[in-house]
Amino acid sequence: MRVLILGGDGYLGWPTAMAFAMKGHEVAAMDNYLRRNIARETCSEALTPNPNLIERARAFQPLTGKKVEVVIGDCADYRVLSEVFNKFQPEVVIHYAEQPSAPYSMMGYEQARVTLANNLTATFNVIQAVMSSAPQCHIIKLGTMGEYGTPNIDIEEGWLDIEHNGRKDKFLFPRQAGSLYHTTKVLDTDLLWFYVRTFGLRVTDLMQGPVYGLSTPEADMDERLIPNFHYDDIFGTVVNRFLTQAVAGVPLTVYGKGGQTRGYLNLIDTLQCVELAMLNPAGKGELRILNQFVELFSVNQIADKVKKVGDGMGLNVKIESIANPRKEREEHYYNAAHSGLKELGLKPHPMTDEVVAGMLERIIRYRERIDRGKIMPRVRWS
Amino acid sequence: MRVLILGGDGYLGWPTAMAFAMKGHEVAAMDNYLRRNIARETCSEALTPNPNLIERARAFQPLTGKKVEVVIGDCADYRVLSEVFNKFQPEVVIHYAEQPSAPYSMMGYEQARVTLANNLTATFNVIQAVMSSAPQCHIIKLGTMGEYGTPNIDIEEGWLDIEHNGRKDKFLFPRQAGSLYHTTKVLDTDLLWFYVRTFGLRVTDLMQGPVYGLSTPEADMDERLIPNFHYDDIFGTVVNRFLTQAVAGVPLTVYGKGGQTRGYLNLIDTLQCVELAMLNPAGKGELRILNQFVELFSVNQIADKVKKVGDGMGLNVKIESIANPRKEREEHYYNAAHSGLKELGLKPHPMTDEVVAGMLERIIRYRERIDRGKIMPRVRWS
Repeated sequence: MRVLILGGDGYLGWPTAMAFAMKGHEVAAMDNYLRRNIARETCSEALTPNPNLIERARAFQPLTGKKVEVVIGDCADYRVLSEVFNKFQPEVVIHYAEQPSAPYSMMGYEQARVTLANNLTATFNVIQAVMSSAPQCHIIKLGTMGEYGTPNIDIEEGWLDIEHNGRKDKFLFPRQAGSLYHTTKVLDTDLLWFYVRTFGLRVTDLMQGPVYGLSTPEADMDERLIPNFHYDDIFGTVVNRFLTQAVAGVPLTVYGKGGQTRGYLNLIDTLQCVELAMLNPAGKGELRILNQFVELFSVNQIADKVKKVGDGMGLNVKIESIANPRKEREEHYYNAAHSGLKELGLKPHPMTDEVVAGMLERIIRYRERIDRGKIMPRVRWS
Repeated sequence: MRVLILGGDGYLGWPTAMAFAMKGHEVAAMDNYLRRNIARETCSEALTPNPNLIERARAFQPLTGKKVEVVIGDCADYRVLSEVFNKFQPEVVIHYAEQPSAPYSMMGYEQARVTLANNLTATFNVIQAVMSSAPQCHIIKLGTMGEYGTPNIDIEEGWLDIEHNGRKDKFLFPRQAGSLYHTTKVLDTDLLWFYVRTFGLRVTDLMQGPVYGLSTPEADMDERLIPNFHYDDIFGTVVNRFLTQAVAGVPLTVYGKGGQTRGYLNLIDTLQCVELAMLNPAGKGELRILNQFVELFSVNQIADKVKKVGDGMGLNVKIESIANPRKEREEHYYNAAHSGLKELGLKPHPMTDEVVAGMLERIIRYRERIDRGKIMPRVRWS
């Protein structure tokens, strides 16, 4: 298939580009380096030295004989995006092109403005480019489980049948997110749903939980190909942060009570999920929503797991609760459906002790590069 | 009170500014003439000759001894808006500053982009300006009943208690709107709710139905003060359009089957509702949502009413169903709660035959200015 990956330089975008190229798809990866620029601005650069997207694609080709076409450009600029659509004529577009950091979106006016404008405009432009240049193109959009927040009822896969005063209808599952970043994804879903039901687009909206890991079959071939692995408070997700803290000898920073429960998945399962969505496209006029995670953990459970495995490797891991910089429930009900991707064929990779040990070993190679100044939260909205 | 009215040149904004100034409030009205510019671009100018906002305020002062302070500027430009907040220090901000035309938002890429960017950025900037310059300021935001769409269940006032698998929680009432314009108001509500629950803002979100009329006590004092009354397919709401068609001898253009049911209100009731919201502010951390309309009518019922009264005045009114340019249900369940504003003290003015006759008489004075080229729908999204 002809696959256009927006945000192709990202933690998920680049491994996706490689994996799909290896499977024989024709892949174009577009990125404007927004995440790299923000990482530099906020002194939150990744653990590993990541060549830029052109250099990565250039390293990938001789190793594999596979090509990833690279476009450096801004999806929020319609002139640029629509030219890419017209030229490449994608059958599927995978839209990762969003400012992905919750703390960054809460830093101040300018960071919030950038997050809102970039994320909404990118999604709007993707919709418009599909309508005008590739109306059959399947949009796979990365949403987040964070859209749902932590409701006191079971979380369904995107939709909820509601009975009220003896009458029934079906609606988007209620959404209320914990940061402006997560809220922009709620707005994306609203926007996609409007255009899907009005103009019959094909959309899969993947409500993804936090992703961990830095190993994929392609990334493991060459150091230049590994995904940008963040352990900082701005871009680092909690598992990746804890692993790095364990290696650095910094106590694992549990925010508040640590009862915050979310659905997690390994990076290699993200690649599987996105591929399954691509190979089984949504129908015309369908907004298919899939909850994309493998296992539920509380923050305390993750900390305990990293400590147990880390201690077994002689790392002597400490856990320390710190004041929660976020406004969120620290103890709450959480039960979320996630059968859709399994029905499509997902073979989950749970976070076993071996997986945790493998990640720790990998991070130990980069031990000297860990900057302890990047670990404590610098942004508060509690 | 010190009241800042954003969109102060609009159909609702200007009458609000006058009414509140007459009551002794200190009023500033801000506008960037977006609606006037779009009206000119799309050849959809109002029936009545409306002096600009500075001229209107200048005409209003000697007649009443009351002052409306005018700022010509763009709320989507934060530098400008935040300067106004810092200088004026409003106790309440009434946010009408949105591109209000559903058909315009569906014309094409550029019109959609302008609608999304203007409306979201204006709302975002209002939130940020309040947080940074006037944290106690009550935000009164004009939403629309159109946010709810036409669900098959009773519409509540903004919120819905949901029981699911034996557990309960309370959520925003599900929203799914019929145009991009209406969808931007859904996004506004999502954004406001995020900032209200995170930072304790005070917000009233008024879900308003279509407004009709051109008479208010202040507007009736001088022709230069009347609101910009639109009868075109872009800005004209259905009652105002039908009244003008009746006067012009053009058959009333019912879109499709005409069973589309909405909640309507007279312009003078909009002024009452907004004042009641202002005098009874939302609490800190409260997103108060009020459904702002007086009576439910189907399009057919409105057409019949205008015909009956018009025929009685010798206008010989015809009704003609035309292909619906919109994507909407033409026959549907519709039952919407609207007790909140009545509890605050709203004294509704129903659309009696006398009210219809009064509006027709008023429009007859401008008969020569009616342009029949502005009546038939020019934008389709069905």
